[in-house]
Parts: sequence; structure tokens; C-alpha cells
Amino acid sequence: MKHFSTQDFAMLDKQYRAKLINSLSGFKSANLVGTQDALGNTNLSMVSSVFHIGADPALVGMIMRPDSVPRDTLTNIKHHGFYTINHVCRDIFQQAHQASARYGAQESEFEKVGLTPEYLDGVLAPFVAESRLKFAVKMREIMPLSINNTILVIGEICHLYCVSDAIKADGYIDIESLETVAVTGLDCYHITHRLSRLSYAKPNKPLQCLNLDGEDSAALIRSKNDPHQHS
Amino acid sequence: MKHFSTQDFAMLDKQYRAKLINSLSGFKSANLVGTQDALGNTNLSMVSSVFHIGADPALVGMIMRPDSVPRDTLTNIKHHGFYTINHVCRDIFQQAHQASARYGAQESEFEKVGLTPEYLDGVLAPFVAESRLKFAVKMREIMPLSINNTILVIGEICHLYCVSDAIKADGYIDIESLETVAVTGLDCYHITHRLSRLSYAKPNKPLQCLNLDGEDSAALIRSKNDPHQHS
Repeated sequence: MKHFSTQDFAMLDKQYRAKLINSLSGFKSANLVGTQDALGNTNLSMVSSVFHIGADPALVGMIMRPDSVPRDTLTNIKHHGFYTINHVCRDIFQQAHQASARYGAQESEFEKVGLTPEYLDGVLAPFVAESRLKFAVKMREIMPLSINNTILVIGEICHLYCVSDAIKADGYIDIESLETVAVTGLDCYHITHRLSRLSYAKPNKPLQCLNLDGEDSAALIRSKNDPHQHS
Repeated sequence: MKHFSTQDFAMLDKQYRAKLINSLSGFKSANLVGTQDALGNTNLSMVSSVFHIGADPALVGMIMRPDSVPRDTLTNIKHHGFYTINHVCRDIFQQAHQASARYGAQESEFEKVGLTPEYLDGVLAPFVAESRLKFAVKMREIMPLSINNTILVIGEICHLYCVSDAIKADGYIDIESLETVAVTGLDCYHITHRLSRLSYAKPNKPLQCLNLDGEDSAALIRSKNDPHQHS
């Protein structure tokens, strides 16, 4: 095993350190955040830091880094109070990555990278038409993190759109079937292969592998073989 | 496409809603958080909300939900000021999931699920010996999120341990080679298949696919065919 301490981190080349530390948290979500400015100019931003905060109300967070350059996305979110989050699927991962280039505020990343803006249900922010799972988010809190001057944006999901077949009987969404990609580090993209869904863990109870609909595979086999069931 | 609005969310069964909303953010990291209490009792907690906050200093965040039950992990973090974060690899994903069962404070999840506590470099928290990428974290901030009474824990990475071969020439860590798993929803685990690393995106410059060491694959081919190089 290779060991790095805080002192070692400090002595690393800046680019090497950024790639190393960005690899540590594990697989990250790949999302495109859509916004528009006061004039209706559209903006699209690649974000790998979207994370779940709660289900009721439905809350998501993301980390934005203001750095020293203007950040159109944050400005637009503050202006309209709405943004969209769009899953990056396999067939658009290169366009999504290109959207992270520093285009000017008057240039639309949609046009530059070849993705299609789409307006749904009166939301004041563009969706990505090519995305198979996307949702509109109402800004709820903007919390500056003084520890390193990044910004935590918390929002509430108010409209969800998803390919129907991917939504399973118990509410689980099979995003693998949508070919949603995962990100590692700053620049690597992955598709996935499911190992299993697992039953809710309880002390002193063995885990069961579940099928995609959240049913115990073994129980399912039993009920199918039992003539007294499903008669 | 299936459409849900805020009103639809409110009318869903609680369990259905939890599974649906937890699926939205995309692929999540799978990590085991190791702590110990004042008496040295070890604790292990499955967390799918660890996310990158910054590289210099090296900061990670995670969301904890206090709910109405005592949360040993948070109590222990506050007591010692240290915790460990350990990647969940394919061969231990079922044990990791079982660690989410509600064991008592005097019961060690390590023992209950069959994982091995390991102490390294004087850190006052146990690592998971079976994990191939793990790091010690010094607590920096505990921020209650008043919006839904969850807690954002921010810490600084102070020791990193990783299988050497996985660390590439430019600092990127190939966590796919470690068989680190990704999580979707509340209970589904996935291994991954790499599509590509991509070059840093710039306006008006085509993207290049990079090899695992972060080198332009095409440039690499050129230099290998050029007798004036590597002579």
C-alpha cells in the first residue's frame, strides 16, 4: 500500500494533487445543470457533486466553486431561483464533458457542444432533451462554506421526468438501464454492471438478494412453485 | 416519459418515495466510516453520501441523518475528532450493506459483519483491513442543515492508503481496478466498466481520449512510431 500524509499532500504538484484527491471519494454522479440568464440565454454546466439530502421534502445538494472567474450557473440560479439537473447517459458523455470548457456568458454550451434545450411545465430553466432522467429544482439555500470558499447549493425537486420502464414496482429507478454514467477523478467516465439489490439489513437476519423490482428472488421462486398462491 | 410533480411526491407511499428520490442524484460512492467510542469500542457505518469538497486542503463532506435514534458514528466523531473512510470493494459489498443494520452501541459492526479493524499511524479510529483505498479524516466542521435536520460533516484527509498499482502517473487513481463499487437508490450495488478518460475541455478544441495515465492515446501512438523519440 502507498501511504500519503498531510505533509506529503502539501509537497505534491498542484495538478497531481487535484487528480489524486478528486479520486478519493469514490464514484460520483454525472449531471448537467441547466440554467438561463435574465435575457433567456441558456447555460449548461457539468457537475459531479450532486448528492441526496432528503426524500421528504425531496432535496439535493451540489458544491459549486466560485474560484476567481464568474460562474454563470450560480448567477442564473440566484436570478430565477430554478435550475434543472439532467443525468448524463453514455451517448452524450463527451458532449457533457465538453460543456465544462470556459465558454463566455453569451455563448450557450447547448449550442457549442450539440445538445438540445427543452422547456417543460413552465420551469424557468432549460432541460437537456437527450437526457433520460431529469428534474427541475427550486433553489432553497445557498450556503458558503468558509472552510475553502466553495458554495453548497440546496434545492427542492419539483418536477421529475424519467423513462417509464426504468421505474420499478417499489419506486427504485434502474438508472443502469438508462446508461447513466459514473465519474471518477476529474475526467474518467464509466458505465456499470449490477451486482445485486440487497434486502433491508437487520441484526441477526441474513441478507437476501433482491430482483430489480425489490422482491426476494428466493421468495419469488417459492411463490411461483406453490399452487396455493396466485390461483 | 413518466412525470411526477411536487404534489405527486406528497401522495406517494413513504417507502416508494424514499426509493424513488434516493435514485435521482445518480451513482453514489460506497464507503464504510470507521470510528471508536471513549472506551475503544469500534463502530462501522455504511455511508453513500461522501463527496469531494476540495483538494487543497483535502476536504470531504458527508450527510448524516440523526432521525430519532442515537447515531454512534456522529457521537464518536465528536468525541475523538477523527474517523476513517474506507472504499467498499466488490468482495465485501454484502458485509458493508449488513453494517447498516441497527446494532447496539456496545456491539461492533466489524465483528457482526465479519470485517477486520486495523489501526494505522496512531489514528484514533479503526480502518477496514479488507479495503484497498482508505483514508483518515480529521473533523473540521459539523453543520446542521436546518432545512431537514440532517447534518453535514466536513473533514480534512490526513492519511491516505491505497494499493500502489492503482495510482497512475498523473495522480489519477483507477478505483475501477480496485473493484470499488457504486450504489444506486438505497440498496443496489454495481461494478463499473470504463468508457474513457477525456482531455481537459477547452472552447474550440476537440476532446481527446486519454489512456489511464492521462496521456493522449493518439500522441502516444505517434511517439512510439517516431524513430527520433525514445532513441
